[in-house]
Amino acid sequence: MKVLVLGAGQLARMMSLSSTHLGIEVLAYDVSSKQVINPVTFEVSNTTLEQEVERAYAITAEFEHIPEDVLALCESSGKFYPGAQSIATGGDRSKEKALLDKAQVPCAPYALITEKSHFIDAADKLGMPLVIKTCQAGYDGKGQWRLKSADQIDQIWSEMEGFIASGTEAAPHSIIAEKMIPFDREVSIIGVRDKGGNCKVYPLTENQHTNGVLTLSIAGKEKAAIQGQAESAFEKLATELNYVGVLAIEFFDVDGQLLVNEIAPRVHNSGHWTQQGSHTSQFENHMRAITGLPIGCTSLIRPTAMINVLGQASIPHSVLTVPGCTSHWYGKEAKPGRKMGHINISADNLHQLGERLSELAEILPEDDYPGVLDTSHALILN
Amino acid sequence: MKVLVLGAGQLARMMSLSSTHLGIEVLAYDVSSKQVINPVTFEVSNTTLEQEVERAYAITAEFEHIPEDVLALCESSGKFYPGAQSIATGGDRSKEKALLDKAQVPCAPYALITEKSHFIDAADKLGMPLVIKTCQAGYDGKGQWRLKSADQIDQIWSEMEGFIASGTEAAPHSIIAEKMIPFDREVSIIGVRDKGGNCKVYPLTENQHTNGVLTLSIAGKEKAAIQGQAESAFEKLATELNYVGVLAIEFFDVDGQLLVNEIAPRVHNSGHWTQQGSHTSQFENHMRAITGLPIGCTSLIRPTAMINVLGQASIPHSVLTVPGCTSHWYGKEAKPGRKMGHINISADNLHQLGERLSELAEILPEDDYPGVLDTSHALILN
Repeated sequence: MKVLVLGAGQLARMMSLSSTHLGIEVLAYDVSSKQVINPVTFEVSNTTLEQEVERAYAITAEFEHIPEDVLALCESSGKFYPGAQSIATGGDRSKEKALLDKAQVPCAPYALITEKSHFIDAADKLGMPLVIKTCQAGYDGKGQWRLKSADQIDQIWSEMEGFIASGTEAAPHSIIAEKMIPFDREVSIIGVRDKGGNCKVYPLTENQHTNGVLTLSIAGKEKAAIQGQAESAFEKLATELNYVGVLAIEFFDVDGQLLVNEIAPRVHNSGHWTQQGSHTSQFENHMRAITGLPIGCTSLIRPTAMINVLGQASIPHSVLTVPGCTSHWYGKEAKPGRKMGHINISADNLHQLGERLSELAEILPEDDYPGVLDTSHALILN
Repeated sequence: MKVLVLGAGQLARMMSLSSTHLGIEVLAYDVSSKQVINPVTFEVSNTTLEQEVERAYAITAEFEHIPEDVLALCESSGKFYPGAQSIATGGDRSKEKALLDKAQVPCAPYALITEKSHFIDAADKLGMPLVIKTCQAGYDGKGQWRLKSADQIDQIWSEMEGFIASGTEAAPHSIIAEKMIPFDREVSIIGVRDKGGNCKVYPLTENQHTNGVLTLSIAGKEKAAIQGQAESAFEKLATELNYVGVLAIEFFDVDGQLLVNEIAPRVHNSGHWTQQGSHTSQFENHMRAITGLPIGCTSLIRPTAMINVLGQASIPHSVLTVPGCTSHWYGKEAKPGRKMGHINISADNLHQLGERLSELAEILPEDDYPGVLDTSHALILN
């Protein structure tokens, strides 16, 4: 069975590596270069997108910001999972919030802003501080503000105005203001839904971000109550979207109550631990779901942590001396801050995982790999 | 790092799939077609063996019967592991027995035969029944006899004589006679040795053969005493060969005493369970060892069984409905009896593994997949 992935980065690569054994062949479409490539060997195929859409048994995506024409072509083939609606929902905060409301899944209070009066109302009704973001997140990395007092409204509105005006009727640009709620930590749930509507959900993952980028995830330390909240959110949202494949949901944990931060209609960085920590990785399960194969076990085999490798030219080989440790290298050219690979580390229990992370912390410089040492201490003490 | 594998079958394929994440790129040399290919995509490279030997960081083999000139070229590069001596030992029963004697590892009593008088002596001294085999096992599948009474000697000798005469001084042909010892079962050990001489050994595997071909393996049911014997044999043999990489040893279990049947200087069918049952698969550990990376954990994560798929055109998708089950398809053209793929199935304990095998037995026809039902019963009862 041939599967075409829109996007040719590490997620497409790991989908390929995790499903070849099932008899699945993966090709990837790089939307920038408009080339079809093998995401493992990086070899360029001399075929076109149209040809590969025709040949594919199933089509999927590794990211949300896909050109309209590509999305339309794939959707019209009837083989595209999780489908254009799910992809669009993941790529637009206004659609995402509408989904959450419809499925009755809690998130922070918010207001959509398309004109200045909405902004003034939001500051008034939601209360400050507010986090203000563009809804169409692909807007070249800009477009995020914090409103702390009403006297900032004019200044921030003048920056927002141009973005909103650049939208069209077909593709409107909007802004969302969310009440900033102090949270204890960030967690996420990864789950998979098959074509028959059956859902399987992995254990909740605790995530640490540094400068807005995921740096470390841990799976295997959650209690049943909070897991139940996350599973319920997954099932409501996946069902509402008639979703097929792996869906990720990021939450803020506010004193034991989960509020959705955002959803990602795809395999997700915070689910990379499943490669070593569960029987069926998120990549294999995504491929099983979209090709109509039975989805596999998502239970935890062993507590596992994942450490992102950001901007480094290589992963120190000595990490492999630490028991239960495996490195995953994406084969990309190194650039500052770029996701270059990740390290998974598993153990028989959380205490042992802490000890192993402590060994890793001796190898990995704190500046490049933040949180490893602190996490090891926390696991050993608990 | 580029690795060249001699042989382009499923073992090369799984070496590739199990080491891409470490940043290793695998190409395979098909000794029949004399082509360099990607063992995953089967794409033919327009490079030569000589070029790839030059480019490789390390070279290894997936089988023992490699043409002399190819072996010599690889050996002279200084990058070939486990090396020509180990490969030759695995491909010649007379060399294998000499190794066992030198390392003082027990096997069944045997005698080498190059003339008729040796044959008569063997029948006399070892006692009948004898199993008689050609030492150079690549001899087109023929060359195995059983001597039950002395009056068969003339007849069998007349069949053996031609084979022995076809040898040369550089490559002598010989025959080995082994005392046929009734054994309780067949087991094997897979281990890995790194360039520094460090060894790690997987748990012993119990193997079932049908018509001389492995059909089912189980790992996770062995007691410490017998594991210790197998580990000791591994360490003696690997050290004697100054071995680098994964080495497999097959044993007969004779009332708790392990006698070596044969060795395989490579990753081995009876170690395929390690893909799901251990932290580091035999394929990943072989690649780690030959490229000088630290070797990884070999302990059992969960009891796991492996079922070979022989001659089938596909694996029923419904096997994936059984919890803990994964299928591995090699992408080859189906031929009767050919190894087409395998199924791994894991569980939290042996009883659960038995229950899951029982579910599998409902899907897999007994004639095509012998031993699944019986094994499930045995595990559930124990």
